[in-house]
Amino acid sequence: MGENITMSDIDKGPSIFIGARGKDLISFGSGQPDIPPPISVFDVLRGFPYFQYGNIKGELPLRTSVANIMEKKFKVPSSPENVVITNGASEAINLIMSSNLDVGDKVLLTRPYYYSYLPLVHINRAAPVFTDLVNNKIDLEDVKEKVKGVKLMIVNSPSNPTGAVEDKKTLNALQEITEDAGTFLLSDEVYNALVYEGKHYSPAGDNVITVNSFSKTFSLCGFRVGYLSCMDDNVVNNVVSQKTHTSMNTSLLSQAVAFETLKLPSRLIEKNRKIFKARRDLIYNRLLGLGLEVQKPEGAFYVMSKIDNPKKACFELYKNQNVIVYLGEWFGAPGTIRLSYPLELDKINEGIDRITSYLNDAR
Amino acid sequence: MGENITMSDIDKGPSIFIGARGKDLISFGSGQPDIPPPISVFDVLRGFPYFQYGNIKGELPLRTSVANIMEKKFKVPSSPENVVITNGASEAINLIMSSNLDVGDKVLLTRPYYYSYLPLVHINRAAPVFTDLVNNKIDLEDVKEKVKGVKLMIVNSPSNPTGAVEDKKTLNALQEITEDAGTFLLSDEVYNALVYEGKHYSPAGDNVITVNSFSKTFSLCGFRVGYLSCMDDNVVNNVVSQKTHTSMNTSLLSQAVAFETLKLPSRLIEKNRKIFKARRDLIYNRLLGLGLEVQKPEGAFYVMSKIDNPKKACFELYKNQNVIVYLGEWFGAPGTIRLSYPLELDKINEGIDRITSYLNDAR
Repeated sequence: MGENITMSDIDKGPSIFIGARGKDLISFGSGQPDIPPPISVFDVLRGFPYFQYGNIKGELPLRTSVANIMEKKFKVPSSPENVVITNGASEAINLIMSSNLDVGDKVLLTRPYYYSYLPLVHINRAAPVFTDLVNNKIDLEDVKEKVKGVKLMIVNSPSNPTGAVEDKKTLNALQEITEDAGTFLLSDEVYNALVYEGKHYSPAGDNVITVNSFSKTFSLCGFRVGYLSCMDDNVVNNVVSQKTHTSMNTSLLSQAVAFETLKLPSRLIEKNRKIFKARRDLIYNRLLGLGLEVQKPEGAFYVMSKIDNPKKACFELYKNQNVIVYLGEWFGAPGTIRLSYPLELDKINEGIDRITSYLNDAR
Repeated sequence: MGENITMSDIDKGPSIFIGARGKDLISFGSGQPDIPPPISVFDVLRGFPYFQYGNIKGELPLRTSVANIMEKKFKVPSSPENVVITNGASEAINLIMSSNLDVGDKVLLTRPYYYSYLPLVHINRAAPVFTDLVNNKIDLEDVKEKVKGVKLMIVNSPSNPTGAVEDKKTLNALQEITEDAGTFLLSDEVYNALVYEGKHYSPAGDNVITVNSFSKTFSLCGFRVGYLSCMDDNVVNNVVSQKTHTSMNTSLLSQAVAFETLKLPSRLIEKNRKIFKARRDLIYNRLLGLGLEVQKPEGAFYVMSKIDNPKKACFELYKNQNVIVYLGEWFGAPGTIRLSYPLELDKINEGIDRITSYLNDAR
């Protein structure tokens, strides 16, 4: 809808900004890398010969590479038979829920949560339970209370929307707490390649389902390739037997490009990480300079800021300043806005200048 | 699993044949065209520049072309805003169910039905109701009885697995019956380009949701591009608001190739249809020659045959003759097997020769 939004449309969520365009628009909204993948990854598609149905789990060479990465890079047990290639992390999370939850099963979300988690809980007729972050971090004591009777917990480190990165000790404790409670731990690690403070850590265990994606590491958002890896064969079989009917194999073209990205040198990932770290530094310092209360993001490419009357800010920034920011409430964080920063430094500066104008007008 | 199947595995459905390979294997199993798309449709992917998220509904040029085809070729009202591009027809059907049905809602299926319909009804916690075909055709009087209190009916003409094509009069009557009953009519038309007797007809109406695919017409099965078109904005909005969370946009690479296939000359579609008609004639006549009871397929590329002890036939044909056929029970048709025939004529002959040997041994 873009242009014609009204103040009350803000309650509808990010979809109101779909179709918003304009040369002068600066969007701190949708979260997708702006750095294109190397053009060489498309060479494989010249005269692509595989037009028939693929394996529902995904092509074996890609699953084999993914299982290797899981074991060697993330130190998490895996095997090609325990990997399912999906239409992005979104489909992985949806299939995990739809094929392993019954009506009314409890799902524990850390709050603030990624925008899609709550709708996915509702779509799958499960019941959400929340554990609120304290100083941007998981509160293990609260999790211990809330996890009782919960079927699935989702942890997302680095986090969208907070940018927080949980440490090894916390994630290991979380794995133990959930395993003891008979709860699956879905670890959504799509931002693992973008960590600026500390190190990314992947929890492992019999109850862990790792979800990952090619979207953020290799800028393949539009091609929709993600995966899940889980050593519990039941979980994998449940997912595959649903995917057989709900979408069949993930696009073979997209899988072929994803496979090519795995051959790229790791220095490319490091190069991108440094670019994003500079952007993080800039936006964080500039928001602090405005006197806003901001937690320093440790990973991903999001920052949350407290702000007075966030709904008004969201609406007027768009209408008067041509800047898109997302409402914290969409992520379960009232009183805040979320800014994504996969933008060149001058764009970030220009966007913050405009936010400055808005704040000056509002004062 | 392929090689190691046992007689009791036959009850598990077509997935038992996944991974079955062999130079000498003849598969009348999975239904996918064997004729590759023209290599030129891949040219668009050279240095493909669109790596960011696409529109959840699908790319506008593709939706515009699809809406034109709906109106000009199929004579069904449509518009780009009423089209959603999906991960194959499978995702379209699943999204229609998951976003428009409540727990326990009734779904009316013609029986025999396409293999995935029943699992999709179960996945979406709806309740199946059946209307049995009579002489391979829809029994309108039975539909009038069964449609009461039904939320969604699926019609599939040309049909997988029967190959039956319903005529204009029947489909118009079906549309009226369902509309009067307050029932959505999902018209799955993925085989519309493969009709050998009579003509394909697309029902239209306020309650109609048309589902179609690029898989069968243009041999793009593995790329997963289908669509739905529906003039009821609520249905479209429900689908889009779920797809936003469950898979986001359909692969932009796959959409780009699908768009290219629409530029192919229509004589290519006619050429393929003639190839498939010759195959239909061959397999039908050879099965008749074996003394089997077979309905003449009018479209698609499937034929059902009555056979003694179909489970044993299915198992022994695979084990002893290296031939895959599908069990009719998987489609709600006990006492039969389904043969798909997207195979060259000499392969069809060889496969039927082997079935002849099996029948001779069994007598």
